[in-house]
Amino acid sequence: MISKDSKKGKLNKQLLTLEDVNSAKETLKGVSRKTDLIYSSVFSDECSNEVYIKPENLQVTGAFKIRGAYNKIVKLSDNEKKRGVIASSAGNHAQGVAYACEKLGVKATIVMPKTTPLIKVNATKAYGADIVLFGDCYDDAYNEANRLKDKHNYVFIHPFDDLDVIAGQGTIACEIIKDLKDVDQIMVPIGGGGLISGIAFAAKKLKPSIKIIGVEPEGAKAMKVSVKENKIMNLDGVNTIADGVAVKKPGSYTFEIIRDYVDEIITVSDYEIMEALLLLIEKHKLIAENAGVLPLAGLKKINSINKNTVCLISGGNIDVVTISSMINKGLVSRGRLFCFSVELPDTPGELLNISKILTKLKANIIKLDHNQFKTLDRFMDVQLEVTVECDGHKHVEEIISELNKTDYKITRVY
Amino acid sequence: MISKDSKKGKLNKQLLTLEDVNSAKETLKGVSRKTDLIYSSVFSDECSNEVYIKPENLQVTGAFKIRGAYNKIVKLSDNEKKRGVIASSAGNHAQGVAYACEKLGVKATIVMPKTTPLIKVNATKAYGADIVLFGDCYDDAYNEANRLKDKHNYVFIHPFDDLDVIAGQGTIACEIIKDLKDVDQIMVPIGGGGLISGIAFAAKKLKPSIKIIGVEPEGAKAMKVSVKENKIMNLDGVNTIADGVAVKKPGSYTFEIIRDYVDEIITVSDYEIMEALLLLIEKHKLIAENAGVLPLAGLKKINSINKNTVCLISGGNIDVVTISSMINKGLVSRGRLFCFSVELPDTPGELLNISKILTKLKANIIKLDHNQFKTLDRFMDVQLEVTVECDGHKHVEEIISELNKTDYKITRVY
Repeated sequence: MISKDSKKGKLNKQLLTLEDVNSAKETLKGVSRKTDLIYSSVFSDECSNEVYIKPENLQVTGAFKIRGAYNKIVKLSDNEKKRGVIASSAGNHAQGVAYACEKLGVKATIVMPKTTPLIKVNATKAYGADIVLFGDCYDDAYNEANRLKDKHNYVFIHPFDDLDVIAGQGTIACEIIKDLKDVDQIMVPIGGGGLISGIAFAAKKLKPSIKIIGVEPEGAKAMKVSVKENKIMNLDGVNTIADGVAVKKPGSYTFEIIRDYVDEIITVSDYEIMEALLLLIEKHKLIAENAGVLPLAGLKKINSINKNTVCLISGGNIDVVTISSMINKGLVSRGRLFCFSVELPDTPGELLNISKILTKLKANIIKLDHNQFKTLDRFMDVQLEVTVECDGHKHVEEIISELNKTDYKITRVY
Repeated sequence: MISKDSKKGKLNKQLLTLEDVNSAKETLKGVSRKTDLIYSSVFSDECSNEVYIKPENLQVTGAFKIRGAYNKIVKLSDNEKKRGVIASSAGNHAQGVAYACEKLGVKATIVMPKTTPLIKVNATKAYGADIVLFGDCYDDAYNEANRLKDKHNYVFIHPFDDLDVIAGQGTIACEIIKDLKDVDQIMVPIGGGGLISGIAFAAKKLKPSIKIIGVEPEGAKAMKVSVKENKIMNLDGVNTIADGVAVKKPGSYTFEIIRDYVDEIITVSDYEIMEALLLLIEKHKLIAENAGVLPLAGLKKINSINKNTVCLISGGNIDVVTISSMINKGLVSRGRLFCFSVELPDTPGELLNISKILTKLKANIIKLDHNQFKTLDRFMDVQLEVTVECDGHKHVEEIISELNKTDYKITRVY
């Protein structure tokens, strides 16, 4: 039985039972999609484990959130359903709540920061939710949602710190264990902690030997810090490209469950996130959001060999306009794009010399910027900025070394 | 029984039997992945049918080709296997053959045009194949492969015009019908025709009522023309962004099978391909190559309502460097990116006026180019190029209309 009263003092994780998760599993039949594990030879090779991807980016609404949101809303009383629900979110929770409400015929109001990309606003609207655009950040939207909740007597749907929500996310563990009964460890992104709480709780109940590893961005590790200090810590600020998990303060339920059921929390850098995203796109043809690839980014940091390791991709709701820039940054980070500038006398044939060297080294030129204004110090010279596609850091070094043998002065741009 | 002798005069499609496809299905167990259908509400709404995606971009090696290649190579005699195989391809066939050979312990040589992106060369090499880089286009590589075949007594593996290869691709139809027994129609890209031949043959044998629709690019419709003329036609040239199906001349087996088993061939433009690719990325978090989304691009052109329609995504091997550019072109094509230039007096406050209008209309500025050199005709004026994110063509029209009410002179860039 799940108690809905979070005010009754000391939280007790025993309020959550495996039955709640099993019942959520039944509830979600025909609503959420069972996402199938995908074996990854690339990521397996990279970390010497057997890596499987659990692609919740392919879930209905593009993220796992529908599981928890639906399981929460379906359990509301008839009276609560009649009153309607409200949530604040610029991301996956918004779409999860809106979709669940559409399915259940419940009125949904979602407060989103004004800065939310139009495409996400429209996706949420398409599920029939009323959208209120308010404030410049999540906190503003959250406060407005609470104001509207009181004013209109709506039911507030918390994105993570709710036992029905957590039980819904726990259904993921059931699917993983059913598909791969020899699973040794599961790696899960941590934001507020709802996802990993559900998974860790259900996994440990079903198969206690499973190791649960949480992954947070270095710039937003509220849960790691809280677990270390053994109390809920509030970060002053967060700084990460993984906006989906940029949470300053963990939940109360989630903190307790994670402290007791999660074996380890590791952190990854923005660069590691970009590189993992690039590999996922390139090798698996899958789009994920930055927060979604935290587990893949963390693979290099786990101390295990030959373990059946499931990496949960939590969602794929990334704005397409930013995918391009992520791809480019990831390519630079992996030594796959290299840009240098060179000052050349403005005479015919100079570009040809540079081209010959690059051709010999199989470096494909993808961009040339030829600028007469940048080199004001030397009359009639031009500055040429060359971007080439390479095969990794070693290849970049070879190119630099060859170019340095010439008389041209080379400067690395990135 | 499949006859391997293609020289014996009139081709007879009866040489291919459903048993061959069923036997390929057994052969491929544990080699190819069973790709699960994904229901698409977005594409369903767009064309008023019930659309399912068959994601062969998630197949091992990133494309369906492994099915046919493995089924072909496994059936070679011991002597042929000892001699080793050769193929020419810059794309999916290369990886399919290389992967199959690695699994079967057969030496593989792949001739690729020198222009093949490094990443595809390396992916093929990673499966243990010997790579020969030769010539500037596919035809050069093909000729070199034939020369090497004769010189070294290799077995040539044709990418599509081979009955074992076709039987392998036919296993896709078995999977579709097993997963969705009420399937009404299947849409398939056509290049050389191997994929659709296998699918059409198997589908019609298993369930004759299934309609098979082929999709070709407008700029490479060799099969449509050939079927219309009832003889194999050789195009003078091809012009399409869907390089995976840019085939000048259909195969002999494939021509006969398609003529007899495919109900309709439709064509799509490069713009339609880009828009479909963008929607697939954005709504389904899936990366496909341009040729891979032909069926999705063709959905608007089919004359059916409420039919269970399976769109086959043939592959996902697109260079990440080009994904960015495809995304941008797709956004422009859908009215999601809009760029205009405006000449402004070089005085403070002018940019603010433009900004106010765009903010009011919720058009998000993503790029500003401010250039003092472009407007040489009016002293001290600057040309400002503004790129904004919009919500479709109607939104773009609204913005243009508002801007035209001002005194500024607006020119649409794209």
